[in-house]
Amino acid sequence: MSVFTTVTPDQLRVWLANYSVGSLTDLQGITAGIENTNYFVTTTQGRYVLTLFEKLKTYELPFYLNLMAHLAEHGIPSAHPIASRANEYLGELNGKPAALVGFLPGKDLARVGPAHCGRVGALLASVHLAGQSYSAVMENPRGPRWWAAVMPEILPFLGTDDAVLLREEVRFQAGHRLPDLPRGAIHADLFRDNVLFQGDAVSGIIDFYFACTDALLYDVAITVNDWCVDEEGALDAPRADALLEAYRATRPFTASERGAWPVMLRAGALRFWVSRLYDFHLPRAGELTHAKDPDHFRRILRQHVARARELAA
Amino acid sequence: MSVFTTVTPDQLRVWLANYSVGSLTDLQGITAGIENTNYFVTTTQGRYVLTLFEKLKTYELPFYLNLMAHLAEHGIPSAHPIASRANEYLGELNGKPAALVGFLPGKDLARVGPAHCGRVGALLASVHLAGQSYSAVMENPRGPRWWAAVMPEILPFLGTDDAVLLREEVRFQAGHRLPDLPRGAIHADLFRDNVLFQGDAVSGIIDFYFACTDALLYDVAITVNDWCVDEEGALDAPRADALLEAYRATRPFTASERGAWPVMLRAGALRFWVSRLYDFHLPRAGELTHAKDPDHFRRILRQHVARARELAA
Repeated sequence: MSVFTTVTPDQLRVWLANYSVGSLTDLQGITAGIENTNYFVTTTQGRYVLTLFEKLKTYELPFYLNLMAHLAEHGIPSAHPIASRANEYLGELNGKPAALVGFLPGKDLARVGPAHCGRVGALLASVHLAGQSYSAVMENPRGPRWWAAVMPEILPFLGTDDAVLLREEVRFQAGHRLPDLPRGAIHADLFRDNVLFQGDAVSGIIDFYFACTDALLYDVAITVNDWCVDEEGALDAPRADALLEAYRATRPFTASERGAWPVMLRAGALRFWVSRLYDFHLPRAGELTHAKDPDHFRRILRQHVARARELAA
Repeated sequence: MSVFTTVTPDQLRVWLANYSVGSLTDLQGITAGIENTNYFVTTTQGRYVLTLFEKLKTYELPFYLNLMAHLAEHGIPSAHPIASRANEYLGELNGKPAALVGFLPGKDLARVGPAHCGRVGALLASVHLAGQSYSAVMENPRGPRWWAAVMPEILPFLGTDDAVLLREEVRFQAGHRLPDLPRGAIHADLFRDNVLFQGDAVSGIIDFYFACTDALLYDVAITVNDWCVDEEGALDAPRADALLEAYRATRPFTASERGAWPVMLRAGALRFWVSRLYDFHLPRAGELTHAKDPDHFRRILRQHVARARELAA
């Protein structure tokens, strides 16, 4: 259940007078999100999504909202924020920062095949191309500085093998910073539940609230780690090949990116293993419990490490 | 037939490399327009419309393209121009200024009832509200100065009654300028063929290439003159009432607007009577003939004048 802040139709009617979107005809809470409160809003003029930001601060939001606008304006199927009559994307409703964005049709996939991965790879490359002209910058808040900082809090909860793996991987990544990789705006969380399909085509990408400025290849690695792994955490070659082939047809990889791929796959796995460990063992007070299984990303990381050793042997 | 400039798939593929919209999968000429060349463009990423501007000049286009973007960003179902990788809405293709815009679903209506007119009235009011924060200005190129200027060219083609009507109406309008009416960005051509419906809801408004800065009420009059008149050019009360009632529920009319309504209905009719007379009797050299019947707007104008005389009697 993800409606943390209730909005009544009467409250919303008053608030919508700040916009040029017609009159409210329907309001439905959305149960899918875990970070924000979301509602489907239907008016005489169209369909929108209302988001009340439960954790993100007002000063952080322009980066995300302007990025969504920028990408939509470049032909990416991302939801465009709706500007108020005062020309603002960001408002306030019931004490929370709030934004209205366009509605995107489609649903996330129950089963993923190579053709879907190809669509996602091509679209991710388009996102990266379009993002090159987005001028705002947000350092990755879940990068090497963060995982090194939270590691001491997590280690006491881990068995010996996992503690060794975590320490060694943090050390490995610290020794393999790759400043010459192409950088730009990245989604940084393009998991299956953030991509909507209609039939075989992508109809929307959502949830830009982990977006930041980082290596484009890191975004590819995060995406492959979700879309193209099997139950044991190993890469599924047909899906990974389809995603990477479609990506490179739109944006060819540089030589430095080709060399950095194994390191990036591990970095993408480490980032989500650490955040899931943290949320699992150190839930924030008063938080609804929705921690996801950390072991899934440990398995992926172990597979990537083992693969790298094979290659080096 | 409205593909004046041919674009081949190979030419378009090269041009689309300037954008982040995926790979071309289909290209279809659109036969509906009379001022520009239009194509439906389908890519791996979505559907778009390509417009090559046949008459408008490059320096005129930013007003229209930025207005379409502004309105779409405010929740109006207008097509958002797609920015290129260089962050430009306007490009050039086969020697013509060219733009790619988002695809809007729906079709124009074959039969119009009061409920449709209500939808159009509400949407037009939203357009006017959203347009209040659009800062660019374009004087109406089809206003009183224009019709006074072209009248001498048209008069030789008219019979006595029509010549009297035209002279008197131009004089009447010159004596009834209404500088205190609320002004802003207006569509100025919101005829039935420029409004797309899906079911009973408006899914798109198109063809902003007569948009300008003028009295909002003038836009309402142009819209009523198309959506709410019968074959004899008389207002159909159920449709006109539905349009005006829905409009005022979103943007109430001011006292000056209520007083100016009969004058504006006549101004809206005069503008299209004059332009149709001009296109009919003075077609531009080399132009494909698609002149519309001028008599339709003469009938509307005569009805409005007769009605005003009744009210004054």
